[in-house]
Amino acid sequence: MEAVNIGLLGFGTVGTGVVRIVENHQDDLRSQVGLPIRIAKVLVRDLDKPRGVSVAEDKLTDDPYAVIDDPSIHVIIEVMGGVARTKQYLLDALARGKHVVTANKDLMALHGPELMEQARRYKCDIMYEASVAGGIPIIRTLIDGFSSDRITKIMGIVNGTTNYILSKMTEEGASYLDVLGEAKQLGYAESDPTSDVEGMDAARKMTILSTLGFRTEVELADVSTRGISSVTLEDIRYAKRLGYALKLLGIAERQDEHISITVEPTMVKHTHPLASVGGVFNAVYVYGEAVGETMFYGPGAGELPTATSVVADLVAVVKNLRLGVNGLHSSTVYKPKKLKSDEQISNKYFLLLHVEDRAGVLSQITQIFADHEVSLESVLQQPNPSNPKAEIIIITHDANLAAMKRVLAAFESLDVIQTVQSVYRVEG
Amino acid sequence: MEAVNIGLLGFGTVGTGVVRIVENHQDDLRSQVGLPIRIAKVLVRDLDKPRGVSVAEDKLTDDPYAVIDDPSIHVIIEVMGGVARTKQYLLDALARGKHVVTANKDLMALHGPELMEQARRYKCDIMYEASVAGGIPIIRTLIDGFSSDRITKIMGIVNGTTNYILSKMTEEGASYLDVLGEAKQLGYAESDPTSDVEGMDAARKMTILSTLGFRTEVELADVSTRGISSVTLEDIRYAKRLGYALKLLGIAERQDEHISITVEPTMVKHTHPLASVGGVFNAVYVYGEAVGETMFYGPGAGELPTATSVVADLVAVVKNLRLGVNGLHSSTVYKPKKLKSDEQISNKYFLLLHVEDRAGVLSQITQIFADHEVSLESVLQQPNPSNPKAEIIIITHDANLAAMKRVLAAFESLDVIQTVQSVYRVEG
Repeated sequence: MEAVNIGLLGFGTVGTGVVRIVENHQDDLRSQVGLPIRIAKVLVRDLDKPRGVSVAEDKLTDDPYAVIDDPSIHVIIEVMGGVARTKQYLLDALARGKHVVTANKDLMALHGPELMEQARRYKCDIMYEASVAGGIPIIRTLIDGFSSDRITKIMGIVNGTTNYILSKMTEEGASYLDVLGEAKQLGYAESDPTSDVEGMDAARKMTILSTLGFRTEVELADVSTRGISSVTLEDIRYAKRLGYALKLLGIAERQDEHISITVEPTMVKHTHPLASVGGVFNAVYVYGEAVGETMFYGPGAGELPTATSVVADLVAVVKNLRLGVNGLHSSTVYKPKKLKSDEQISNKYFLLLHVEDRAGVLSQITQIFADHEVSLESVLQQPNPSNPKAEIIIITHDANLAAMKRVLAAFESLDVIQTVQSVYRVEG
Repeated sequence: MEAVNIGLLGFGTVGTGVVRIVENHQDDLRSQVGLPIRIAKVLVRDLDKPRGVSVAEDKLTDDPYAVIDDPSIHVIIEVMGGVARTKQYLLDALARGKHVVTANKDLMALHGPELMEQARRYKCDIMYEASVAGGIPIIRTLIDGFSSDRITKIMGIVNGTTNYILSKMTEEGASYLDVLGEAKQLGYAESDPTSDVEGMDAARKMTILSTLGFRTEVELADVSTRGISSVTLEDIRYAKRLGYALKLLGIAERQDEHISITVEPTMVKHTHPLASVGGVFNAVYVYGEAVGETMFYGPGAGELPTATSVVADLVAVVKNLRLGVNGLHSSTVYKPKKLKSDEQISNKYFLLLHVEDRAGVLSQITQIFADHEVSLESVLQQPNPSNPKAEIIIITHDANLAAMKRVLAAFESLDVIQTVQSVYRVEG
């Protein structure tokens, strides 16, 4: 073996970054793995499109199997995105004994177990550090760094688009739609931003993180997901006034081997390390029984940060190749999955209610909380300047989710409540 | 092989934590490495001392070679501390084919290369994640997570004692000596705190981090070190007023393959992620050419956090053992060392001068900066309420260290300057 030959599937932003890093850091990489690394073939959609980095024309192809079937290729790097077709390419590549590095969170969240099973069968590595939180090496941290500990909580700001939007709304008092428009112009949001703003992107990443953190096979359907499209400036102002930042958090928790995973806008105490993570940055907070509080912060996306993680995986694959131990690493998923019921999920909640401004309203509302055994940490009633009605802001003590759902159901038949304007989980 | 047998050298705080984690997480550990892990022998100083965890009496010994020479032992975990004697124990253990996990920063900073060479010779692993920043897996992050990138800056709050002292001085306006006294009572500072407060502890950790980050063999003598014992409340108040936090930072930088490493009290812009790391927490900020800004935050010390890192190393060693690849990992240090000269080191500086309160003083002082081509970002002159003299606060633009040293030398012969009260590096 004179060189490690790479087949690159996809030549967009991250693919370009991978070529750039492999070229610019060739000496460093060779010092670490003992062999030169060569980009042997690149699958592109359009052979004639001009590109930011130069790759010899005869290495470009628009036929995926020209890459997958090439016997000289040792490692496939998948940065093309997509799910069904891409999965088949990677299953086929693994069946041909090629190791795989992928940045594809959708694929790993939906079909990770199947791909890993295929990798095991053919004694191949499959690595996916870049699929979550771009440049932050959080996946190897969960697998190796905390191998000795029992992780009980993972809280992540794992979607840069929504963190950018909420940060801008908080800092500048601009509306959701205005900031979203700006984010599209800056390239921080897709032209169809649904997957980001409705929390689906974050849910996929939390599926991957909680599978590793809890060592059990979490599925996307296990993640209760709510996005930020209904967050108002009023909510953000209240959060700020009460000493919280409103963030789209993925939260995975474990208690007595029962787990729950949610993605939802959450009020985070301003002293919590996640509260000050602004802009498009990502951060993952991990709580372990033994280690306590830790946090990992960095860029969540972008050409070079994401490519850094892809090439770090490549280095790991090549080191394994040289040692002859690809596909031999022990499984990180070995626990049966037990999901928490709503009765077992316990959180603090913030509620903003618009109510009739007359005597006895507060007493009727607080009675409902009492009836369902939800106790309250703080209650504030005040006139609403822009509305003839009054506002009531409530923060509960820890309450189980089932009881909270019963409270919200009871509110529906309470005439004095005009609207339940907002309900947010509260952390820290 | 039916079980992995561990020889534990030292049974203090961290040793107790290791036994606790190995016992409490036995099922998890076994699921990951496929074998039970047994504490086979423990070296103690006093056989009769009562302990927080139970280890069968016949496993305790006060003879180090009863552990090191025991043929049934596969891995030595060194948590006894000390340098010269401990180094000999580990060299001997490696020579007998035993893998080593150590939490000993002094040993690794001073003799890391020699120990690693011995490990290579005998095809053994030596791992030392717990030696820096307790529960934060920063060492494997530098080796594996950023293997593909070129790290240009590492800034660390890597000493909990000094961070606690500076945080308390900042929050409560208490004096250095008062907070130090309190820290001793709380067990956050040793009875002889010299190594912590004078920056030596942080310098050892920066030696280890910069060796890994820059892939070159940094020695303790390469680290320019200054502690916090001369930091005054006045300094902290000025820092706060100007929008900075005063932190003891280890800073390792690389530019054009030339490096510099310092440990010194530094003014960090309050928007920088390191500025809000309070109390005994540690954090390491890493800047990579490709990845950009990242930060890793967590507990820097303590029984269980440190033991978490020790046992995570143990898991890695045992996985290697099962794969038959101990001691075969490629070297992470392969670059010749080139240190920056003072002319190549460039920073912003904060200066607090006590001066005569008369006409022309400021002009004389600013002339000296001009003479040495140091340009100024901001200058503030004001009367000092507690002193008949005036105060001048200066923040420079980026200036090279040699020029700054010439400025400070010129100040000595300037009659109008009463004292150069403080000089701090400014970051962020």
